[in-house]
Formats: sequence, structure tokens, C-alpha cells
Amino acid sequence: MPGRGLQVACWRGFHCSHTMKYHQRAAATPRRAIMYVPGYDDRKANKAATLTIDSIVLDCEDGVAINKKEEARVNIPKLLARTDFGSKDRFIRVNSRDTGLTEDDVSSILASNNLPDGLLLPKVNSVDDINWFCDLAARNGNLKSLNRPMILGVMVETAIAMLNLKEITSFKSNTFDLQCLIFGADDFLAEIGASKTENAMELMYARQHVILHAKAFGLQAIDMVYNNYKDLIGLQRQAIEGAKMGFTGKQVIHPGQIDIVQESFSPSKEQIEWAKALSIAFEDHQQQGKGAFIFRGQMIDKPLLLQANNILSLINNVNGSHTSS
Amino acid sequence: MPGRGLQVACWRGFHCSHTMKYHQRAAATPRRAIMYVPGYDDRKANKAATLTIDSIVLDCEDGVAINKKEEARVNIPKLLARTDFGSKDRFIRVNSRDTGLTEDDVSSILASNNLPDGLLLPKVNSVDDINWFCDLAARNGNLKSLNRPMILGVMVETAIAMLNLKEITSFKSNTFDLQCLIFGADDFLAEIGASKTENAMELMYARQHVILHAKAFGLQAIDMVYNNYKDLIGLQRQAIEGAKMGFTGKQVIHPGQIDIVQESFSPSKEQIEWAKALSIAFEDHQQQGKGAFIFRGQMIDKPLLLQANNILSLINNVNGSHTSS
Amino acid sequence: MPGRGLQVACWRGFHCSHTMKYHQRAAATPRRAIMYVPGYDDRKANKAATLTIDSIVLDCEDGVAINKKEEARVNIPKLLARTDFGSKDRFIRVNSRDTGLTEDDVSSILASNNLPDGLLLPKVNSVDDINWFCDLAARNGNLKSLNRPMILGVMVETAIAMLNLKEITSFKSNTFDLQCLIFGADDFLAEIGASKTENAMELMYARQHVILHAKAFGLQAIDMVYNNYKDLIGLQRQAIEGAKMGFTGKQVIHPGQIDIVQESFSPSKEQIEWAKALSIAFEDHQQQGKGAFIFRGQMIDKPLLLQANNILSLINNVNGSHTSS
Repeated sequence: MPGRGLQVACWRGFHCSHTMKYHQRAAATPRRAIMYVPGYDDRKANKAATLTIDSIVLDCEDGVAINKKEEARVNIPKLLARTDFGSKDRFIRVNSRDTGLTEDDVSSILASNNLPDGLLLPKVNSVDDINWFCDLAARNGNLKSLNRPMILGVMVETAIAMLNLKEITSFKSNTFDLQCLIFGADDFLAEIGASKTENAMELMYARQHVILHAKAFGLQAIDMVYNNYKDLIGLQRQAIEGAKMGFTGKQVIHPGQIDIVQESFSPSKEQIEWAKALSIAFEDHQQQGKGAFIFRGQMIDKPLLLQANNILSLINNVNGSHTSS
Repeated sequence: MPGRGLQVACWRGFHCSHTMKYHQRAAATPRRAIMYVPGYDDRKANKAATLTIDSIVLDCEDGVAINKKEEARVNIPKLLARTDFGSKDRFIRVNSRDTGLTEDDVSSILASNNLPDGLLLPKVNSVDDINWFCDLAARNGNLKSLNRPMILGVMVETAIAMLNLKEITSFKSNTFDLQCLIFGADDFLAEIGASKTENAMELMYARQHVILHAKAFGLQAIDMVYNNYKDLIGLQRQAIEGAKMGFTGKQVIHPGQIDIVQESFSPSKEQIEWAKALSIAFEDHQQQGKGAFIFRGQMIDKPLLLQANNILSLINNVNGSHTSS
Repeated sequence: MPGRGLQVACWRGFHCSHTMKYHQRAAATPRRAIMYVPGYDDRKANKAATLTIDSIVLDCEDGVAINKKEEARVNIPKLLARTDFGSKDRFIRVNSRDTGLTEDDVSSILASNNLPDGLLLPKVNSVDDINWFCDLAARNGNLKSLNRPMILGVMVETAIAMLNLKEITSFKSNTFDLQCLIFGADDFLAEIGASKTENAMELMYARQHVILHAKAFGLQAIDMVYNNYKDLIGLQRQAIEGAKMGFTGKQVIHPGQIDIVQESFSPSKEQIEWAKALSIAFEDHQQQGKGAFIFRGQMIDKPLLLQANNILSLINNVNGSHTSS
């Protein structure tokens, strides 16, 4: 993807002034769906390259059995070299620190001349894990050849990670650009001994905790996997719920999940129409000296304008970013 | 409102002993509804003065368009001078720190001899914002003429504020008496990119996070605005829900919302009857040496007595505080 | 219960490697139900001894009226001496620090040669309260006669405790082995001025906050009391909900609640069958080099295996631990 620079802008528009110091990194590149593909599996990777999806993740971690780990980490640079993934963001997910496999992953993947757009570090428990990984990558890879920081996503999937989330999400570095906070719900549920239910009420706290921390530091917040890949109605319900909560995207595990997820994280026609009309009405009332006014039965003031602006920015990003490279 | 001293008491009664150090400031003045009135709008202010409502807020911030800001801050002291708001708490909401307008607000408002009962500082992101504001007010206003600390309410409406909430709510000063923590849901939703839904499930974490921090430090917790001012059934549902969660009051944006909100934050007849009967039964059983006993199908011990005492204290405050000045 | 050593194992199996440093203390002893019995009440204690329940708590605190406190603390050592509680865990709940009664409780109870298996400290607000209690116990009791640390459970029931929960749950000592974090919902509701509703939505944040902190440090998380002891359907619904959220057990206040609660915190036949089948399928697929695969309509990878392993470990513990002493 030659010439693809770092796309960084604040999609929240003018609203950001007072917190700009916290989220200069907020990414305008939409990542409504990110799909995992086992790093050794050329067939699935080639298929993925043909799909309309914002991001793909070539996986070395949980989607790869222990006896395929070496094959995956050797195959991924070749995949990146020969496959045209179009405008998709190409991430690689390495194995987590506790496995002892991360160093081999990094050596193989970052030594290549075909670097991905970003890296995902799973099972991050503390900012110390991120620092450890960045040091490892700096020692082993050829990141210096990049004319930009490497995009980084971190996955939080343990109880202790949730308790350390403020320091995790406020991570800063010159070499890595932390853009995504990804919620690994299945590992999290396993660790806290919980069971996934229909409405995922047992994850209410954790999901909103993740959103809150991501947004406080301008990161994208990526929601949990919906495991039952045949249940598209349940998928849609959960995706829309996540979007309304403030997630910016969702992990997918099957091509059949992509369209529903990407649509759920895009503004609807009704939302766009409402946002445009409100934006005009707000401007009119400001000129008349009215800070608050009634619009379609709701009392409107600046915060609702900001919500409208969010919708308009999002639709611009979704339409613009994946046709430009 | 001459002679109105600082009303400070712990409405939790004897329960407080072990945490008294944290909430000496807990206010007994009920603030079940607080209503915003644009600071430049004499007609609305005069109307508000005639209403039965616990608190009004003369607004310089989001209810006032940018070209009316000066008019609002000049008009407010005149309004306070000539208008009899009865026993209502009179707050002024200044513009937030990031706007660059706060200093002018403070200069105009606090230079007056007609000081309000309290000030609301919106979009507080950290305790540093509160300290900055208090310094500003001390330099510019005539707070020293007061024989009491100025009552302060802070609004939290950003993600970073939620992460800094413990230090915000534990703020202490000799000049300002922090009594209210107000949740600005619409700005918060805009910042985290969320959408308000019917049951507001996307705000579950944030609302309960606000209540928890407020109550840990003896502050009143004031719930979100219900924007659809014509939907009184929805308003009532959300107000009752907030009251049951532990909020002590709710922001309102229209006179038609006041009665429902104030009623929702007052104990019902059934609750009062239950509380009185339980209180008597508890005393009886204590004298018989029973710490736990069965009352109307429930196993009762001290914590349920405390809930009964809350109800009885609340009804006393509501009946008493607004007839005394 | 001679010869009963400290049962410490990680029921999460191999999943723990990366967080083992945080929860070496995770207890394998199931405490699905813990029931309070007033410390002065021999009849109830004798009855409790005959019941099939994981843990009983001889109470000095809220279940004991103020004029029975002395009787309770004197009676408890005698009860422990003469009563065979079988394999049950025997806890004693002392009065909280703020009452001024704890020292007398400790002097009476820990001076005895008939020590309980564990102590419960209620209304803990900070780790300082735990340290204070441990010092008190070390000075007054004969804990040195034990060949193991004393098991400790702490109850959190105030707003400030929730804000200090990370430091509370990371408490460590050589003399006490913190194993249980118990949520005192009724006191908590009283303090935050909330009201218990049918679905307990007002406690969503607090309950999941407790679970998260307990699990981050390897503690058991014990859910709230269901006060309406005649409503077994409501009890079951709440117990199952708590188990699915990640609680490991629940407080009970009536013998009629025990069976439903213990069953709710045990894996169902369907869960056990699913877990066994998935475990076998996972192993097969690993050998074929597949890290992710489809099983009964779900995409499975390592996290779901961990959930299956949890179920299998739990059923082993429940079957094993209470027949061995």
C-alpha cells in the first residue's frame, strides 16, 4: 500500500478543543470490522483480500494451533508481499507475552521488508507489557525504515488489564502509534468465571469501561466477537448495541459477519438526515442568539449538535478513506 | 435570600459514623430538580421565579448562543437583585475553562453584591480545573463578603472526567463548598460517540460511576436531562430509575418536567409507611435482643433499617427546607 | 476439623500462567453458599450443623442486637468446641472497625483454642482497615498456634470501599490469607441512597466491579443476600444471574435458600457435557493444526476451551472438597 500515510484526525471536530491534549492520535481510518485470518492459511487470506472489509488481522495467536505457530510467522511476510489487500488495513496479531512466543513472531515478521499497517498485541495486562513489546520490536525489527510510527492495537482480556486500563490507554511512544483498544471478551469471561448470555449483561461493566478509557485517550474501541456465526440476527443486535454504546468497530470471525457489522457501525440514512437538518437549524438559531431551541420535539443545545457532527464526520470518513489509496 | 446559612447535615443519620470524615459536606437542602434558564432571558427567569422547584440555574453556557454571552453575564446580577426567587436555590452556570470565557463570566457575576447561592462549573476534566476556577473566583470576586463558603456544583461530561472522578469528588477548599456532582449526559455521549437509547443502557456504567463517587464523598448526585420534554411518561420512568439508582435529583429543561421530577425524587406514601413501621419493629426487636427478624416477608437487619431511615430523613428535608427562609 | 490444611489451587487451570503472580491464593474450596447464624443462637447453630452447605458464618455483627453482642462473642468459642460442623467452612463475622466492638470480639474469639477456619471483617473501607484488624488479631489472638494463615473474607458495603477496591483486593499478609470478597448490598444501597429493584439493575456496576477486582487477585466473589426468603423463584433467578456474571457464591440468610443457591453455582449437566465434548474436540483439532474450528455452530478457539475447563474444574472441586475431611 505505497504512499499510505498515517491518517490522523479528530473525528469529533471542534468539540475536542478542551481534551485535544489527550487524543491527538484519534484515527479517522474507520475500522468498523476487523477479521482474523490464520497466518498460515493462504486460501483464507486470498479470500479475505477480495472482501469489502475495513481491516484484516493475519493471526499468529489463538487462531493458530501450537504446531502451526512457526508456519504462520514464516508465511505472513510472504502473504503481505504477494497479496493485494486493496485499501484494507493489514494488521498482524502476535502471540502474547506470557507464551514466550512473541520474540520469534517479531523476529520473523518485522525483519521483513513487507511490513503490515499495524500490529496487535493480545492479553496486555499492564503498560509494562506494551513497553516490553515495543522494546522487543525496536531491537528485532526494521521499524526505522518506516516513515511513520507503526500502528498498534492492544487487546485487553483479563481482569487485571481492566484495573490497569488508564495507564494502558495513556501509553505513548514515538515508534508506535496506539490507535485501537480491543476487548477480548471470551478470554475475559473465562478468567472471571462468567458465562456469556443472550444479552451479554454480564459484560456491561467491562464493555463500557473499555469504551470510556479508549475515548478518554482518543483510541478506537473495538467490541467483542459474536461467536455464533450463523446467527446473523443476534449478531446485528449486538453490533448495533455496541455502536450505540460508543464502540467504533467489532471483531469478526467469519466473512458472513462483515456486511452486517460494517453497516451497524455506519450512520443510518435517518441519522444522517437528522444530523444535517439539526446542524443547519443550530446555525440559524445561533445567529438569532438562541443557544437552546426546540427541534422535532427535543430541546437542543450544543451537546446534541456535537452528536450530529459525529454522525456527519463518520459518514465522511467511511466514504472517503477506503477509496483513496 | 438574607440570613440563609449553609445547610449541612448528614441525611444518612447514624449510619455515617465510619465515613463521616468523607462527607461532612453532605447537603440536606433537597435539589430534586434543577432547571436551566438562559441568563439573558428575563421572561423565562420571571416565570421560573413563580414555579415550585428546588433549584434554578441562570445559564451562561450551552443555553446561551455565542453572540448572547455578554448579555447573559451582565444581566444575571440584575436578575438576582430584582427577582424574588423565594426559597429556591439560585445557581449560576459559567462557561467552561476551555472556552476562554470563564474569566469574563466570573468578573461580571462575582463582582456584584447580589451573589447567587451557588456556582456550577461545567465540563470539569480534572481537579486542576476546579482549582483553577476557585483561584480565578478568589481573585476576581467578592467572595470574602460572604459569611459562608460559596456552594459549588461541578458537571462531568467527558470521558477523562470519569477517569479522574475520585480526585474531582474529593476536592476540598475553604472558599468553596462542593455539594453537587452533575452528570452531563449529552456532552458525554457526544464525546464517546454513543447514541442515547430508550432505556439509556449505554449510560449504565457512567451513571452508576457518578453516583458512587458522589456518595463516597457526601455529594448530591444529579442525573441527566431528559431531552424529549413532551414525553412525560418517559421522563417519569427515567426519573424514578435515577432515584432508585441513588441519584438525589435531576436536571430539567422545561417547566413541564418539574413536578414529575420532584415527585420521583420524593419518597412515596408506601415507602414512608414501610419505613415508619420497620423503624418501630426494629427498635422492638433490638430490645428483645434480636438483630435480625422477619418483617413482611423479608429478613431485616441493620442495613434495611438504614434504608428506612434514609426515607424518613428525606421526607423531613423535603418538607422542611423550602419553607424556612 | 483436624488436619484440614489450606486448600489453595487455581481452578482456572493452565489459563493462569500469565497472571499467576496475582492470584496464588485462589481457593479451590467451593463457597457457593455462606449462611449467617447469630453467634448466641445455639438452636440455629445446631440446625446449621446438620445442613448441606459449603460455609457457615457465626455472626457477631448485624444479625446480633446490641444487647446480645457479649453473649455472642462468649458463646462462639463454645459452639466451635462442641459442635461438629462436618466439612463446612466455619467463619466468624466480627463487628466492624467503626463500632468500637472489634477488639472485644477478637479477644474473646481468638483467645480460644477452638479457632474457626476463617474470619469475616465487615464494612472494610480501605486496606488500612484490614491492616488494623490483622494487627489487632496478631496482638490478641493465638494465631501463632495455627500451622497455616487464617483465612480471611472482607465485606465491602460502602461507596468509598468501591473506590479503594484495588488496594483492598491486593492485600497480602503472612498471617492472613485473603480468599473472599463479599458484597454487602443492603448497606451499600443504604449508603448511596438507592432502592433495591426486581432486577437489581441499580447494582449492576457495583456487582461487576466487585467481581472484576476479586478475580484480578484470585479471590472468591460472593454475591448479595436475597432478602425475600420466601420467594425461591426470585432467589434462583438472582443466583443464576450472579453465577453467570462470575460470582463464585452467594450469601444466604435462611436454610430454605441453600439448595437453590448451591445448585445455581454448580455447573449444569448440559454445561458439563458441552465442556467435556469441547475439550476433546479442541485437542483433536490442535493435533490437526487447527487453532480455531466450528463446534455446534460456534467458532471455537482457546478462550472457549478455557471456559470449558472452568466448568470441569468447578465440578471436580464441588464433588471433591467436602468429602475429604
